[in-house]
Amino acid sequence: MPNHQGSLDLMFHALADPTRRGIVERLVRGPASVSELARPLEMSLPAVLQHLQVLESSGLVISEKAGRVRTCRVEPAALRAAESWLGAQRTAWERRLDRLDDILASHRSGDSAAEGDDRA
Amino acid sequence: MPNHQGSLDLMFHALADPTRRGIVERLVRGPASVSELARPLEMSLPAVLQHLQVLESSGLVISEKAGRVRTCRVEPAALRAAESWLGAQRTAWERRLDRLDDILASHRSGDSAAEGDDRA
Repeated sequence: MPNHQGSLDLMFHALADPTRRGIVERLVRGPASVSELARPLEMSLPAVLQHLQVLESSGLVISEKAGRVRTCRVEPAALRAAESWLGAQRTAWERRLDRLDDILASHRSGDSAAEGDDRA
Repeated sequence: MPNHQGSLDLMFHALADPTRRGIVERLVRGPASVSELARPLEMSLPAVLQHLQVLESSGLVISEKAGRVRTCRVEPAALRAAESWLGAQRTAWERRLDRLDDILASHRSGDSAAEGDDRA
């Protein structure tokens, strides 16, 4: 799935920066204009726009311009795709632990059966 | 939380590459030696080692050397930290949707009350 892989590349890259994660954390609470997003950030507007561009190319943020105001929104489906990849890894890992538990349990019951044999 | 932010930076950066995600996908199924990890990959051993180094600095993978064999394992706590940040964003977003639903519902009941008033 090259497209899916490519979008995971872009999404994780976009999230690998504290300013961009901060923008996502702001946008999950509701849409915001570029100037609202820029206000709390200690950087130039062009720097903020560059971060927004990385977020938009990753699909995590979408924006629309109405008159002179550009409003940004988070794209929850993109967040879910990244979360779902991580969830799948956790599930695979937990499944492996469960299998190890089963193996251990069956060895233990094998041991007690063997001990029973010894005692007999 | 600069340390927490820093580790999220490193983790998301580590996951922004399909080869490194492939290594994580392999390691959640169980530990593997460096040569086992390198076998299916179409790249030089130094390139594989470089990817492993990025994964290790992010805390997602840990490795141990016994004799001439270096064995790699996934660190589930690190995977969980990245998943948990994404989960928190999803939760914040869903909470906002719930609030919007409540506002909409209270407006609707306000409207029907007003319609009732008109009819009276």
